Amino acid sequence: MKKIAAAVMSVALTMAGGSALAQMAAPAAAPMAGPVDRAKILTAPGVFGNFSTYKVRGDYYKLSATERKGAAAEVLAVVEKHKDKVIVDAYLTRGFEAQSDLWLRVHSYDMAATQAFLVDFRGTRFGMHLDVTENLVGITKALNYITKDKSKDLNAGLTSLTYTDSAPRYAVMIPVKKNADWWNLTAEQRLKEMEVHTVPTLPYLVNVKRKLYHSTGLDDSDFITYFEAADLGAFNNLLIALASVPENRYHVRWGSPTVLGTIQTFENVVKALSY
Amino acid sequence: MKKIAAAVMSVALTMAGGSALAQMAAPAAAPMAGPVDRAKILTAPGVFGNFSTYKVRGDYYKLSATERKGAAAEVLAVVEKHKDKVIVDAYLTRGFEAQSDLWLRVHSYDMAATQAFLVDFRGTRFGMHLDVTENLVGITKALNYITKDKSKDLNAGLTSLTYTDSAPRYAVMIPVKKNADWWNLTAEQRLKEMEVHTVPTLPYLVNVKRKLYHSTGLDDSDFITYFEAADLGAFNNLLIALASVPENRYHVRWGSPTVLGTIQTFENVVKALSY
Amino acid sequence: MKKIAAAVMSVALTMAGGSALAQMAAPAAAPMAGPVDRAKILTAPGVFGNFSTYKVRGDYYKLSATERKGAAAEVLAVVEKHKDKVIVDAYLTRGFEAQSDLWLRVHSYDMAATQAFLVDFRGTRFGMHLDVTENLVGITKALNYITKDKSKDLNAGLTSLTYTDSAPRYAVMIPVKKNADWWNLTAEQRLKEMEVHTVPTLPYLVNVKRKLYHSTGLDDSDFITYFEAADLGAFNNLLIALASVPENRYHVRWGSPTVLGTIQTFENVVKALSY
Amino acid sequence: MKKIAAAVMSVALTMAGGSALAQMAAPAAAPMAGPVDRAKILTAPGVFGNFSTYKVRGDYYKLSATERKGAAAEVLAVVEKHKDKVIVDAYLTRGFEAQSDLWLRVHSYDMAATQAFLVDFRGTRFGMHLDVTENLVGITKALNYITKDKSKDLNAGLTSLTYTDSAPRYAVMIPVKKNADWWNLTAEQRLKEMEVHTVPTLPYLVNVKRKLYHSTGLDDSDFITYFEAADLGAFNNLLIALASVPENRYHVRWGSPTVLGTIQTFENVVKALSY
Amino acid sequence: MKKIAAAVMSVALTMAGGSALAQMAAPAAAPMAGPVDRAKILTAPGVFGNFSTYKVRGDYYKLSATERKGAAAEVLAVVEKHKDKVIVDAYLTRGFEAQSDLWLRVHSYDMAATQAFLVDFRGTRFGMHLDVTENLVGITKALNYITKDKSKDLNAGLTSLTYTDSAPRYAVMIPVKKNADWWNLTAEQRLKEMEVHTVPTLPYLVNVKRKLYHSTGLDDSDFITYFEAADLGAFNNLLIALASVPENRYHVRWGSPTVLGTIQTFENVVKALSY
Repeated sequence: MKKIAAAVMSVALTMAGGSALAQMAAPAAAPMAGPVDRAKILTAPGVFGNFSTYKVRGDYYKLSATERKGAAAEVLAVVEKHKDKVIVDAYLTRGFEAQSDLWLRVHSYDMAATQAFLVDFRGTRFGMHLDVTENLVGITKALNYITKDKSKDLNAGLTSLTYTDSAPRYAVMIPVKKNADWWNLTAEQRLKEMEVHTVPTLPYLVNVKRKLYHSTGLDDSDFITYFEAADLGAFNNLLIALASVPENRYHVRWGSPTVLGTIQTFENVVKALSY
Repeated sequence: MKKIAAAVMSVALTMAGGSALAQMAAPAAAPMAGPVDRAKILTAPGVFGNFSTYKVRGDYYKLSATERKGAAAEVLAVVEKHKDKVIVDAYLTRGFEAQSDLWLRVHSYDMAATQAFLVDFRGTRFGMHLDVTENLVGITKALNYITKDKSKDLNAGLTSLTYTDSAPRYAVMIPVKKNADWWNLTAEQRLKEMEVHTVPTLPYLVNVKRKLYHSTGLDDSDFITYFEAADLGAFNNLLIALASVPENRYHVRWGSPTVLGTIQTFENVVKALSY
Repeated sequence: MKKIAAAVMSVALTMAGGSALAQMAAPAAAPMAGPVDRAKILTAPGVFGNFSTYKVRGDYYKLSATERKGAAAEVLAVVEKHKDKVIVDAYLTRGFEAQSDLWLRVHSYDMAATQAFLVDFRGTRFGMHLDVTENLVGITKALNYITKDKSKDLNAGLTSLTYTDSAPRYAVMIPVKKNADWWNLTAEQRLKEMEVHTVPTLPYLVNVKRKLYHSTGLDDSDFITYFEAADLGAFNNLLIALASVPENRYHVRWGSPTVLGTIQTFENVVKALSY
Repeated sequence: MKKIAAAVMSVALTMAGGSALAQMAAPAAAPMAGPVDRAKILTAPGVFGNFSTYKVRGDYYKLSATERKGAAAEVLAVVEKHKDKVIVDAYLTRGFEAQSDLWLRVHSYDMAATQAFLVDFRGTRFGMHLDVTENLVGITKALNYITKDKSKDLNAGLTSLTYTDSAPRYAVMIPVKKNADWWNLTAEQRLKEMEVHTVPTLPYLVNVKRKLYHSTGLDDSDFITYFEAADLGAFNNLLIALASVPENRYHVRWGSPTVLGTIQTFENVVKALSY
Repeated sequence: MKKIAAAVMSVALTMAGGSALAQMAAPAAAPMAGPVDRAKILTAPGVFGNFSTYKVRGDYYKLSATERKGAAAEVLAVVEKHKDKVIVDAYLTRGFEAQSDLWLRVHSYDMAATQAFLVDFRGTRFGMHLDVTENLVGITKALNYITKDKSKDLNAGLTSLTYTDSAPRYAVMIPVKKNADWWNLTAEQRLKEMEVHTVPTLPYLVNVKRKLYHSTGLDDSDFITYFEAADLGAFNNLLIALASVPENRYHVRWGSPTVLGTIQTFENVVKALSY
């Protein structure tokens, strides 16, 4: 009980200061006007990432070819309308996935702005003929474990190599959920696990790009891991390396779905599906 | 056998008194007439909460635009008709969830009154084009573990801070089911677990609102947890905190689905989906 | 091997006598003629219980209002046609369940008679627009564990209290499946578990009615548990009590689905769904 | 390594002899001409059993009554066409199962012949309106464990009693999959488990018929168990007996689905579903 | 920390050399021009294998018979168009599988070329009426465990026997996923497990062909195992042998789905489904 009373005290103090929480997930200041700065939003913490996959319904192909031909332009107009709030990446998954034909990744500084875009997208002729088959949402945060302070050498390793392979042609999204045992480890124990997890990933810095989103409580995963590569063999080896460390024992979801697509312009994705 | 005979005796006595059960889940007295008092029903024990999610079928968009434009008014008329029995909160989930486009939370003092409303809602032009994708029902109860009597300091902590962030824009519903080990703990053991569970939640009293519904036997969950926040990063941190306590080991369902939506008027939700 | 030889012997003897099996699940003698006696069939052992849930397809609402108005009469005619063989209870689940709009419970002394009724029901205008979403079948048996012989005091407890609350307005069906550990317990061990299970249920005899069906091998559950109550708070507390005993550790299925409906006439159920 | 070299040697020798494998699953010699001999094919080893379940789509009932009336004759013509290669058993499951309306069991000496029949069946007016909801395939083998050599007394028990109840009216199919622990037992350990499994089944030889198909690698089960009975209470008791032996602990699938149907002529099944 | 610093060093050195990764999954050099060489692509490492299953939608059978008759030619034209990049194998699964009517296996040296083919295939009249029900992608690699260096005798065993049975008529695809315990074994431990796994498969070299694809991170499996046989009884016995080794304890997915089809020309598969 003493311990709890102290905890309550400490909470009250923290709140008085008001800054502890703010530091934990300080949303990046959203730019005031003009189109979203792609380089900035893709590296800032506090950014919302939204991953949605879609399947084209059979009735889309009962529209006239003329109507289907106009689909891409209509979709691009929606992207244009929202360009001050969101950026959109599109991937063609038909031929790789049973559950989807296309996949969108949307970034914004405001989750509601992402929703506004996606609602408008679904209102297009193309969007009206889609079934959503997966939708995951996450938030970016500053590096958590392998920081300069906590793990100096590995942090140096992470920054010493950069992607040098040819331009990525493929993207993969893999949701991750960890069990209660993981979350009940101490911060030190989790750091140690993540160090062992990180070492075998270093060789792949040159040919697999990656990005992490946090999603506990926002959907039924804890993390959304995102990868880009030109060399799928290297990517396959990276994932085998990640399976071969003790941290893998804490996974209760790793994939389900794993989503693989080719990186394409949104226009080309819509056209590819609009015969 | 002696023990069982005694138990039967004690049961008989309890029933004679007739008050034990009544105390356990005494339904709040329903007001006699006039619209439901929102502030009252949202804080009273013995109130029924009904959570349903819906997906708009593709054929809705084959109606004429005129028909879709009339949808919101028709829905509001149903809300008006039932306003003496139920209150309705609506959330837009399209763009966040694969399994739904909208989500309703309905409160009443009589579960059948909630059903009457929802049956009427489904009879509207809009409702006829919906597929229900989730439906959970629960009942509110007086605070169970962290009461003034059982856990004085923590109870004080819970009441010392209130929501001070900007008006919530997002709501999240997360169903919870616990395993047999949890339910076979003694009341004291469960209290201790809930104290450890509660401590890390205190800092978030200022920026995450929450409400609890009990649902054992009413659906396939034990609890329905409901949250409102403006700051989704803070919400994400709260949920990580709740994952990081031993009580998490007793969860067999936590989410599945996790439902995230923007808080909107029912009218706006229907309009947003009625292009 | 000796033991097996003895077992074979004992089997042969048993079969010679021919009565052991008969005693185990002696089907109640079906009445010769006239409508099924409701009171009798609801208490007899060897009766077949059939639980089916249905969802109305969207195309039902594309029929003319006139056609939908005739639906209830057509359904009642089918009930009338089969009244010498089956009795039917109907429940409205729309608004409570995502997987169904209505739920039927059918009793008969002959499972094929139940099938004949349900096939005819599906042939009505209303039935043709339904999707079956769950179907469980079971058989009633004489009390197994808490009998006068095996557990005298508890048996007395079970019979000393009867339902005294206002007429039940709600019904709940919960399928139950137990794991191999349960079925490998000795009869004595299972009896002890069921005694501990039964004690906390006694207080609820006054406000929750219950009925048990056995279904091992007939569907993917071992039992179908059926409840009726006016007071859903009391029902919720009863189910929490049942979760809080060691027997709960043997459950591999408890719900999935839990089906909750309002008790209504079949006519009203059809009408409520035939706007 | 020595052990492996020896294994390779022994394999080479075995293959040289060429007979070991042949003995393991020697397909029965298929008769040369004329209709399949039902009694023979139902008892021979090396026969392929194919179990498929179907649900009638709603659009079938939008055909004219005349078209539906012709359905049974068209289906029987397909049966006639393939009668030299396959035999077909049909069961009506509507009213018992949510996942199906009818169930077919097809036997042949050549799996491709079964496919040819089922492809033709699906090409009929009736078949075109069906959705397949389950499809399991297996092969019959000579008795494996409870043979005269390995378990003399029990084998005698198995053959000392035969079905004497009235003609079976119901059939049940239950797929079975066992875990790695089971398959890693020695042959002797598995024999012992199967002996304990067999003893409690002996009393039911008189009122439950059964047949076993092996399906490891052919579908997602290891066995397909098939039962026929007139007395469903006896069948329920048999399955409880089978749940109450240690072998049950090795099951990872037992049912899912359990399929129950009435035994009918194919003609009657089609007619019953063609109002 | 020392260990990690060393790891980072070693990574840097490896990358400097640049050859380690290349060796790990060196993609086979794709031929410059002309149709894909079937014999070569089916034995080369670094080749992409794509497995997709399809179900024909009911509306296909509402096209005129003339339109359906033209389907095969249209499909073959797409195969012809892509013949310099991909080879396609087709299998008829109707009658064996509930989840599919046909199954395609596509090989290419470039995953995007496979996608281009499959997107075009879906754009045919036939393809537009298909629902994709499974899609797995993998990559071939050089033999991993049972190599001449690591396991000399077994490697000799693997190469001493070749398929001598009559031409395979059936193909089976079984996805495999292994748990964290497997991937955390040392290479030596995994080699030992694979040796024990391989021994009982040797007798089946003469009547079951097999091929392995690696898929970790590319989809929700680690391996896609592919088999061809004329003798399904022998295949069933092989799979039982593979279930009966300790390595089976590491499987978390083995099948789900298991897909069985007859080996046919693509033309015949389309025709068989185009009545």
